Amino acid sequence: MDFPVTRIKGGVGAPRGFRCSAISCGIKNPAAERLDLALIYSEHPCSSAGTFTTNRVKAAPVKLSQAHLRLGDLRAIIANSGNANACTGVQGIQDAKVMCNGVAKPLGLKRAEIGVCSTGVIGLPMPMVRIEQRFGELVEALDSNKGGEVAKAIITSDTRAKEIAISFDLGGHRVRIGGCVKGAGMISPSMATMLCFITTDANVPRAVLRKGVLEGVEETFNRITIDGDMSTNDTVLVLANGRSGMPPIRRNSSLCRQFRSALRWVMLELAQAVVKDGERVTKFVTVQVQGARTYSDAKLVAEAVCKSALVKASWNGGDPNWGRVLHAVGYSRARIREELVDIFYDGKPACLGGLQAPTPMDELREIAAKPEFGIRIDLNQGEVDYAMYSSDLSPEYIDFNRSEYAYWKQARKDGLV
Amino acid sequence: MDFPVTRIKGGVGAPRGFRCSAISCGIKNPAAERLDLALIYSEHPCSSAGTFTTNRVKAAPVKLSQAHLRLGDLRAIIANSGNANACTGVQGIQDAKVMCNGVAKPLGLKRAEIGVCSTGVIGLPMPMVRIEQRFGELVEALDSNKGGEVAKAIITSDTRAKEIAISFDLGGHRVRIGGCVKGAGMISPSMATMLCFITTDANVPRAVLRKGVLEGVEETFNRITIDGDMSTNDTVLVLANGRSGMPPIRRNSSLCRQFRSALRWVMLELAQAVVKDGERVTKFVTVQVQGARTYSDAKLVAEAVCKSALVKASWNGGDPNWGRVLHAVGYSRARIREELVDIFYDGKPACLGGLQAPTPMDELREIAAKPEFGIRIDLNQGEVDYAMYSSDLSPEYIDFNRSEYAYWKQARKDGLV
Repeated sequence: MDFPVTRIKGGVGAPRGFRCSAISCGIKNPAAERLDLALIYSEHPCSSAGTFTTNRVKAAPVKLSQAHLRLGDLRAIIANSGNANACTGVQGIQDAKVMCNGVAKPLGLKRAEIGVCSTGVIGLPMPMVRIEQRFGELVEALDSNKGGEVAKAIITSDTRAKEIAISFDLGGHRVRIGGCVKGAGMISPSMATMLCFITTDANVPRAVLRKGVLEGVEETFNRITIDGDMSTNDTVLVLANGRSGMPPIRRNSSLCRQFRSALRWVMLELAQAVVKDGERVTKFVTVQVQGARTYSDAKLVAEAVCKSALVKASWNGGDPNWGRVLHAVGYSRARIREELVDIFYDGKPACLGGLQAPTPMDELREIAAKPEFGIRIDLNQGEVDYAMYSSDLSPEYIDFNRSEYAYWKQARKDGLV
Repeated sequence: MDFPVTRIKGGVGAPRGFRCSAISCGIKNPAAERLDLALIYSEHPCSSAGTFTTNRVKAAPVKLSQAHLRLGDLRAIIANSGNANACTGVQGIQDAKVMCNGVAKPLGLKRAEIGVCSTGVIGLPMPMVRIEQRFGELVEALDSNKGGEVAKAIITSDTRAKEIAISFDLGGHRVRIGGCVKGAGMISPSMATMLCFITTDANVPRAVLRKGVLEGVEETFNRITIDGDMSTNDTVLVLANGRSGMPPIRRNSSLCRQFRSALRWVMLELAQAVVKDGERVTKFVTVQVQGARTYSDAKLVAEAVCKSALVKASWNGGDPNWGRVLHAVGYSRARIREELVDIFYDGKPACLGGLQAPTPMDELREIAAKPEFGIRIDLNQGEVDYAMYSSDLSPEYIDFNRSEYAYWKQARKDGLV
């Protein structure tokens, strides 16, 4: 970023005027005390924005949150982990409404001011009996120091809570942005989904915020892939309450550009954290496509490379296999010419003009053995760039995702199926 | 099929007037005596047809065989395993030409009458020094009983040779079709590629044959997937020499339909054999999409389901995870409505109207535990069907494909890199 930001503590609770809470309801595991129901609340009205999965099979809370955002702005978000409330039909919508109403009432808000998110196993009814008595307790527990608990409460197969908070100067006012995210599979529907919540005390009018969020998501969360699958629940929600005391950010102003740049930076940190904490992931690989004729061509190439099972298997093995990269470039449907393609590992040429480059294999193997490295693919056909952030695919990932039968057994024990 | 066919022995050598040979040149492994160079030859002129990978990165022999087919008809095919001659630039084209010339001369044919195919590791030069002295020996060895050796000589990471031959009555004449195939990864570029050769002594004019091959491939080889990757070398070549003594098949005649039906059946047998012998595959799953509005929608749904890493992982685990199937249906980009989708495992409903069906989980688990089962997805939106044949994705597949370094070491020892 081209201006200084300071990392601060507190995640989504760091910006002024936000309070958070999280409790353990036994949705994830009735036998273990794991946080699995979370609330984010702004003491003051907010502008808000969201982006959602483009999967035609959408979870109930996605449909409800989308409807609420169309009606106006959100001021609170309730989220659970352990059950995605997806493929749950009319009952799923009712359950999502109960979750919104459950916190709207004690908070003195309308239902449409609540965003609702779920993540976890799909196709099983929400265990509402464990949740519906706990809303009062959740609201009671609200506190300005509990951003970290929200980050913990939304994770599923993630190995760690992922959050960030920064402060920076925006036109002479100190402004904060906080965020948390959960991912693990992108998507692993067993543990459906990526959820990301971002709060800020910047004063951002709705139109400015919504444009900034759309652009930011396109350049960050839409550019990560772990297993190539797309969830039923993916959601990014952003709340801005203006409590930093700054005047409203005007459209197309330099402050607007600066805020968007900071928002994008927070999103990129969170998006990359999702890849690094992907299910059984051992590598973080940045794939940079350049020299494409169009944005679409550059994106097709990056996605084909980042989604290829064979390319990802070679990353897992630390094998600088430029042949597999080139073959994925070839079937990407982008307009490419084999004899023009150059491929670099951390800047060292592995393939020049479609043929093996003179770099010694041992040098390339050293790079591919590292936990993080970059592959640059120059198509030499134009001037458009595109970057994606990806992981390897490990034998352990497949093993981890072989069966979800344990969830069904629990659901049967609960009398839900 | 709606007419009787008899399985016979002999693979591509079974039809009259075809002779085959295979020798061991040490391309696969200099230290082991494995067949790796094969020749199929028709004693009489043929009509011929071929389909090739649509990958923009095409191996040299693919480019050359395409050029030869444009010039006229093939009468012989030379093929090697162990090296794909892909990403090998101008030298690769020269090497493929040397292979064609090497057998054309002793056979008394023009170079353009030879089809050439390679499969194996990509990005390494062909070890021509091991091949170029052996063409005479290869031609000398031609024999009508060696179809099985061709099937053996083209395999790479396949666990077994895959061939078939049938005879059937066509308008009062006994006609034979023989074929062999290699696959393993579809594609594993380490062992690039699917190759399929089919011979027949039916009397099939070029136009009839080419249309029949295109249609047959669309309904068979284009409907299989193991890992979702597409090779640089995929090739299907078909030779018809008319030596059964029948008169030429006329376009759109009933004999024409009968021949195409038999050709398609042979292709389907070979295509399914490729899936069943895929790298570290444990399941063969037929995915039948029905009730789609268009062919394109049906195909999008089938491909999304068959390529999803998570769906394939659940097949590996014997988990009847209809939720994962439905989520792949959702992101397929086909026009679907969640509340209309039904999903069946071997005819038993797992999901009805987007929700869990009442079939007991244990019954569904028994089906998903079998080595072969079918999933039927009814979109309930139209009348178009589409079937695909797919495999699971196993931890062992990833492990198997982690590194190709051994090939590089061998190539260095050979002074090729």
